[in-house]
Amino acid sequence: MDIQQIYKPVEADLLRVKETLRKAGAAEGASGHEHMAEMLEHVLDVGGKHVRPAITLLASKFHPHDDKLPVLMGTAVELLHIATLVHDDTIDKAEVRRGRPTVSSLWGKDVALLVGDYIFAKSATYVCDTQNVRVIRTFAETIMELSAGQLKEYMAAYDWQQTRDHYWKRIFGKTASLFSTAAETGAILGDAPENEVQALKSYGYNLGMAFQVIDDILDFEGSQTVVGKPVGNDLAQGTLTLPAIVFMERHPKDESIKAFFEDNGNQEKCQVAIDKIREASNMAEAHRIANGLCDTAKNALNILPISPARKSLLTLADYVCDRNL
Amino acid sequence: MDIQQIYKPVEADLLRVKETLRKAGAAEGASGHEHMAEMLEHVLDVGGKHVRPAITLLASKFHPHDDKLPVLMGTAVELLHIATLVHDDTIDKAEVRRGRPTVSSLWGKDVALLVGDYIFAKSATYVCDTQNVRVIRTFAETIMELSAGQLKEYMAAYDWQQTRDHYWKRIFGKTASLFSTAAETGAILGDAPENEVQALKSYGYNLGMAFQVIDDILDFEGSQTVVGKPVGNDLAQGTLTLPAIVFMERHPKDESIKAFFEDNGNQEKCQVAIDKIREASNMAEAHRIANGLCDTAKNALNILPISPARKSLLTLADYVCDRNL
Repeated sequence: MDIQQIYKPVEADLLRVKETLRKAGAAEGASGHEHMAEMLEHVLDVGGKHVRPAITLLASKFHPHDDKLPVLMGTAVELLHIATLVHDDTIDKAEVRRGRPTVSSLWGKDVALLVGDYIFAKSATYVCDTQNVRVIRTFAETIMELSAGQLKEYMAAYDWQQTRDHYWKRIFGKTASLFSTAAETGAILGDAPENEVQALKSYGYNLGMAFQVIDDILDFEGSQTVVGKPVGNDLAQGTLTLPAIVFMERHPKDESIKAFFEDNGNQEKCQVAIDKIREASNMAEAHRIANGLCDTAKNALNILPISPARKSLLTLADYVCDRNL
Repeated sequence: MDIQQIYKPVEADLLRVKETLRKAGAAEGASGHEHMAEMLEHVLDVGGKHVRPAITLLASKFHPHDDKLPVLMGTAVELLHIATLVHDDTIDKAEVRRGRPTVSSLWGKDVALLVGDYIFAKSATYVCDTQNVRVIRTFAETIMELSAGQLKEYMAAYDWQQTRDHYWKRIFGKTASLFSTAAETGAILGDAPENEVQALKSYGYNLGMAFQVIDDILDFEGSQTVVGKPVGNDLAQGTLTLPAIVFMERHPKDESIKAFFEDNGNQEKCQVAIDKIREASNMAEAHRIANGLCDTAKNALNILPISPARKSLLTLADYVCDRNL
């Protein structure tokens, strides 16, 4: 499955989003913020799949509307995503993102903090240009969800007593909130009636949850060469994800994870826990849950008229569930 | 001069702002963000003079309007100020703010980063509640100015080749932009005609510039017991402020500051530079500039009708220029 094929109905608009992002750095230089311009150009000149703006654009395609608005919104959604990456990489002490050195590794944590703040605010200006107050407010609330979600993950590190419920709340905040907003705002700016807005929001929410679950599965399944990180990296860093929670549900008396979290420098205990979590039946259960979320996402689209955009959103859900990268 | 007396015309509204701020932390707990609630309560339960929201409220008082709107905006302006303090304290490694330990000293830099992000977004939700897109956009641009201003200061550390022009741009970003926005948005939401909006914006801009210049003067003039920081702390940290720039303008051949900046661990060289900057004629010139900015702020109000709010804004400008704290 080729992602560009899925994006076909919004190909031209997505190009406009990418072009706006590319030029955003240069614009800052012109307004007297030379240092900021240099750093923005570094951050914005990256690849990536642009899945969030693509969702915004596709969600807008069901009714006649002003084409400019979803492009502005798609730009904002991608910029917001980039701002969170800049701050997350700072917290995680990540050295590399998409093959390039991170802002914090090049210029330090303090600069990364300010550059992230700037991109947050910059993303909001694109939302403001839509002139739609409902969309602007949803966007601000999403930034709150994103930072609260990251804080939850941070505070829950090395806490082995977490349930699925904790996990769902956490990944809603850090991932699904933005997917949900990407779809919802696209629908609103695409002049969709309220029931379709809610359907597309639900699609975005469930797709975002599935996206994060798959990410967390790949962390255990992928080989280091494909994922670029050692297998079980999340657990090693003290983050409890769905495969680990499924394992604990199925083996309530097994204390491997507890043993590692209570002695978290211990590589041997870490490996024992990882090997147990990776056991086939645990991973199958996690996959079953991810597939269920993808199905819920797809079913939410039932009320929408059959169209190329709907077909793309359906295929995108399959793509997310099948991705092995 | 008593600041509460100056705030008299907006006393009731300012109480509503403070009440909203006090309750903001608790509201987060109710929405499932318990950790965030705890940290917000710590950050928001502080004193402070609330000069920025007072400006918003006073600027709104010239025409009949919906009272709720400036209260929402005042709350947003103070929250935004608090968000920048949380991030600035993180960068400056400050241990204490207004007599209380900072977020970064209590919970670490990573948490402070996320809490600051959350407060930025939270402040934006209050602005959204005004439903005024012009005001929302101005607010987003102000966040960009604030972070770009901080970045300028950060990047310019220990650079002795800075002129007044660099200094003006830097302090506009880090301080005057928010004062300007506080006044401008108050005027807009107070239904003022455009010429009065511009007059109040100019008042806010010049008052904010004066406010920062006085801050920078006090850093050299205050005694450690009053200011709570050692005299010349800015210079010691590599930040070149107006008194230092005035000194360099008046003594272009003196290389005391250059000598210290090029050997920045050297306390003796630091003290030599501080003593030279503190010389009476340099400080008198810096004061003259601050007074000029205050006068410009006051003159901007000439076109406004005589009223208690106008009188308060005029007195506030005198208060800012005379403050010795």
